[in-house]
Amino acid sequence: MIGIKSIASYVPVAGVDNYAQGAKFAKDEDFILGKIGSAFLPRKDDGQETSDLCVEAVNALFASNPELKREAIDVLIVVTQNGDEEGLPHTAAIVQDKLGLPTTVAAFDISLGCSGYVYGIYAIKGFMEAAGLKNGLLVTADPYSKIVDPEDRNTTMLFGDAATATWLGEGATWQLGKAKFGTDGSGAPHLKVSDGVFFMNGRQVFNFALLKVPAHLHELLAESGLQPDDIDAFCIHQGSAAIVDAVARRFEGDPDKFIKDMVETGNTVSSSIPLLLEKHMFDSSWKRVALSGFGVGLSWGSAIIYRS
Amino acid sequence: MIGIKSIASYVPVAGVDNYAQGAKFAKDEDFILGKIGSAFLPRKDDGQETSDLCVEAVNALFASNPELKREAIDVLIVVTQNGDEEGLPHTAAIVQDKLGLPTTVAAFDISLGCSGYVYGIYAIKGFMEAAGLKNGLLVTADPYSKIVDPEDRNTTMLFGDAATATWLGEGATWQLGKAKFGTDGSGAPHLKVSDGVFFMNGRQVFNFALLKVPAHLHELLAESGLQPDDIDAFCIHQGSAAIVDAVARRFEGDPDKFIKDMVETGNTVSSSIPLLLEKHMFDSSWKRVALSGFGVGLSWGSAIIYRS
Repeated sequence: MIGIKSIASYVPVAGVDNYAQGAKFAKDEDFILGKIGSAFLPRKDDGQETSDLCVEAVNALFASNPELKREAIDVLIVVTQNGDEEGLPHTAAIVQDKLGLPTTVAAFDISLGCSGYVYGIYAIKGFMEAAGLKNGLLVTADPYSKIVDPEDRNTTMLFGDAATATWLGEGATWQLGKAKFGTDGSGAPHLKVSDGVFFMNGRQVFNFALLKVPAHLHELLAESGLQPDDIDAFCIHQGSAAIVDAVARRFEGDPDKFIKDMVETGNTVSSSIPLLLEKHMFDSSWKRVALSGFGVGLSWGSAIIYRS
Repeated sequence: MIGIKSIASYVPVAGVDNYAQGAKFAKDEDFILGKIGSAFLPRKDDGQETSDLCVEAVNALFASNPELKREAIDVLIVVTQNGDEEGLPHTAAIVQDKLGLPTTVAAFDISLGCSGYVYGIYAIKGFMEAAGLKNGLLVTADPYSKIVDPEDRNTTMLFGDAATATWLGEGATWQLGKAKFGTDGSGAPHLKVSDGVFFMNGRQVFNFALLKVPAHLHELLAESGLQPDDIDAFCIHQGSAAIVDAVARRFEGDPDKFIKDMVETGNTVSSSIPLLLEKHMFDSSWKRVALSGFGVGLSWGSAIIYRS
C-alpha cells in the first residue's frame, strides 16, 4: 500500500510584518493574532518562480531522506493554481528539469486551491497504484503573493508563500484511510482571479467553511465507524485563526485537538495541511489524524490518515 | 476494476476552411491534406467558454448512456491548459455547477496538453480506486483558438477545438493495461504561451515525437510481453498527418494499424485520442489498442487498453 513516508517544506525567510501591515489598515495586534492568526507572512523573492519554491521543498525532502535517490522518483505532481507559465506548459515539467529528475518521470499539475493536499494524496496514491509506480513526490506551491493586491485589506493580511514536498511509497508509516470530497461551483465567484488580481468574498467563504467542514468531518467519521475520540488530531486548512477556531467550536469535540499553527506562515493555501503534518505529526504519538481542506472552487475534501 | 465504459464528444460545427487558410500562406491542398492532415478546423463560438465545451461533451455522454444519472457521478476531472479563468478557480468546479452535478462530486483539473488523455485515464481510475468512488467523468477540452495567433503560419493551420467526455466505472468493456510515462522539462520552451499567444517550435516537437514515441511503444510492448502483432490498432495523438505517418514508419510495424482521422478536426490536443476511440474502437472487433500522447511539457505517455 502506498502511504506517506516523509514531508519537507520550504518557507521563505523574507516576508511581511503583519502587525505593521495591520496598522496600515487600522487593525490592532489582537485582530492580527486572534482573527488573522499570523504575525508574519513569508514572501518569495521577485526572482523566484513557483517552480523554484517546489525545487527548494523537494531538495529539503532529499536532504532529510538520503536513502531517496533522484533516479528512484517515477511520479511528480505539483498542486498549484499559480504556476510559472500562462497555462502551458505545466509547472511539474519545469520542476522535473530543474531538479534533474529522470525523464521517465510521469509529471503533471493538479489545479486546486486550499483543498488540494487532501485531493492530492489520493490522486498520487491512486495514479501510482494504477500505473505501477514506486516513489512519488506530491508538491504543493501556490504563492499568492503573485496575485494578491497589497492594498486589498480583505486578502493582503492573510496569505503567505510556502511550498511542501511529500514522499509517497511502499512501507510508509502513515497510510490513507477513508476520504470524502465535495465541489460547489456556484460559489466559484467568491474566490477568483480577474485581470491578474485575486478577489475573495471573505464572509461567504467563512460561512461556507463553517457550514460544510464540521458536518463533513462528522460524516467521514460516521462512515469510517469512528468517534471523535478516536481521532488524535484534526489538521485542517489554516485559512485564518478565526475559521479554525469556528470550525473547532462547531464540530463540538475537543477544540484543543484542532491544531492551529500559522503565526509565522499565514494561509499558505495547499501547503497549510502538509506544513502541520511535517511539524506536528511525525514526532507525535498520534495514531489517527483527520484532515480537511476547503476553499477555491468552492471545493472541499476530508480524510483520515492512520499510523500503520 | 475501473475501466472505460463510454466516450462522447463535442466538436463545434463552425470552423475554418483550412484550404482557404493554407492558400493565404501559399500552401497547396497536398500540403494541407498530406502534411497537416486537416481540411477543416472546428472553432468554438467567441461566447463559449472551455467549461461550455465540457458541458456539451458530457451532455452527449448522458444522451448516449441514459442509464447514467447525474446523481451517480462522484468524480469529475477536466484535462485542460486553457481553462475558463486565470488560474483559479479550476474549470471542473464551473462544469460541476453548469451540469447540475451533485455537490458530493470530487472535482479538479489536470494540467497537461497532448499527453493528457493517457495520463488522465490512469489518474481518474487511480483516484477512484484510492477513494472508493464509482462513476467518474474524464473530460478533455483545450481550445487552442483562445491562444493561437491566426497570423502564425506554424500553428494556425494545425489546431481544432473539441471536447470529449469518458465515463469510467465498474463493469467496463475496455480495461487499462500497462502504461509508461515520460517528461522532459528541458524542452518546455518548445511549446508555450507568452503574453497570451501560443508559440511552437514545430521542428523540435516533430523531432522529439519521432525520437520518443516509436521507441516508447516498443518498450511498452516488450514490458507487457506483447508483440506488435498483438495490437489491433495504434491510436496515437493526431499532432499532424506528417507526425502520425512518421511515427508509424519509424515503428516498423503495419502502418495501416496507426489510425489517422483528423481531416475534419485538426489537432485537438488532449481530445485527439478519445475522439479516435469514440469513433473507431467501440464498434470494432479490436481486442487490444495501444495509445500514445505527446507534446507540451515536453510530456509523453503510452498505454495498452484491452477488451475484457
